[in-house]
Amino acid sequence: MKPIATRSDCPISFSLDIFGDKWTLLILRDMILHEKNSFSEFMNSAEGIASNILIDRLNTLHSQGFVTKKASELNKSKFLYTMTEKAIDLVPVLVDLMEWGEKYNKKGEPKALLAKILKNRDKTIREIQEKLREKRYQPSAG
Amino acid sequence: MKPIATRSDCPISFSLDIFGDKWTLLILRDMILHEKNSFSEFMNSAEGIASNILIDRLNTLHSQGFVTKKASELNKSKFLYTMTEKAIDLVPVLVDLMEWGEKYNKKGEPKALLAKILKNRDKTIREIQEKLREKRYQPSAG
Repeated sequence: MKPIATRSDCPISFSLDIFGDKWTLLILRDMILHEKNSFSEFMNSAEGIASNILIDRLNTLHSQGFVTKKASELNKSKFLYTMTEKAIDLVPVLVDLMEWGEKYNKKGEPKALLAKILKNRDKTIREIQEKLREKRYQPSAG
Repeated sequence: MKPIATRSDCPISFSLDIFGDKWTLLILRDMILHEKNSFSEFMNSAEGIASNILIDRLNTLHSQGFVTKKASELNKSKFLYTMTEKAIDLVPVLVDLMEWGEKYNKKGEPKALLAKILKNRDKTIREIQEKLREKRYQPSAG
């Protein structure tokens, strides 16, 4: 794994050294909530990520061990990304960001998942993580 | 409150629109974990924030309602910052970032708080939040 330049020994700072930006966690969100796993799918998200930024963030996620990639069986020039345990461990962060964002911006979607998080956060996190772990062992052919 | 440009209706994206960067959450960390509340104290943190970035992020935190500021009684040219409920609601995110950062970078500090989080995350969050709320009603003179 490529070593990253850390600013301090603070674990919060270390986390932000890797994914403290506006885009990296949105790629993980796409994999978690929208079952996306390819460049073209990430490009099509509502936020309109620029292709050079997406390439950069996917490279970071890959070099830092958050995702593995393999060529699609149907299209050898297409890579399919799968989250590792290191990324799956970020589900609580994403769930908390969702809960906070929903509280302070009432337009938030998806309402069904938000309701589930508010009802039982820990159970919802466990369910999402289990689903992601199952997918690691049965990756789609793409 | 100054409206911010949002990229989508996704609550995770909304959260990152405001504090998706390497520095904003570190200022809140300083207020939460290190009881800092002034520009000079934030400047002295281990990560070595640049003064122009600190000014920018404090302005955002203030204009977006995460902190209130008032002149110190001992030094009228010095501002003291206090977290609002909007920022206190981010304690779970910071605790999760700490937990994740500690897991993937074993140099992490402070060990005592990390042990407490691992033992009982929800209780630790509640205790931190209660302490921050008490401080809102008894701000130090600085």
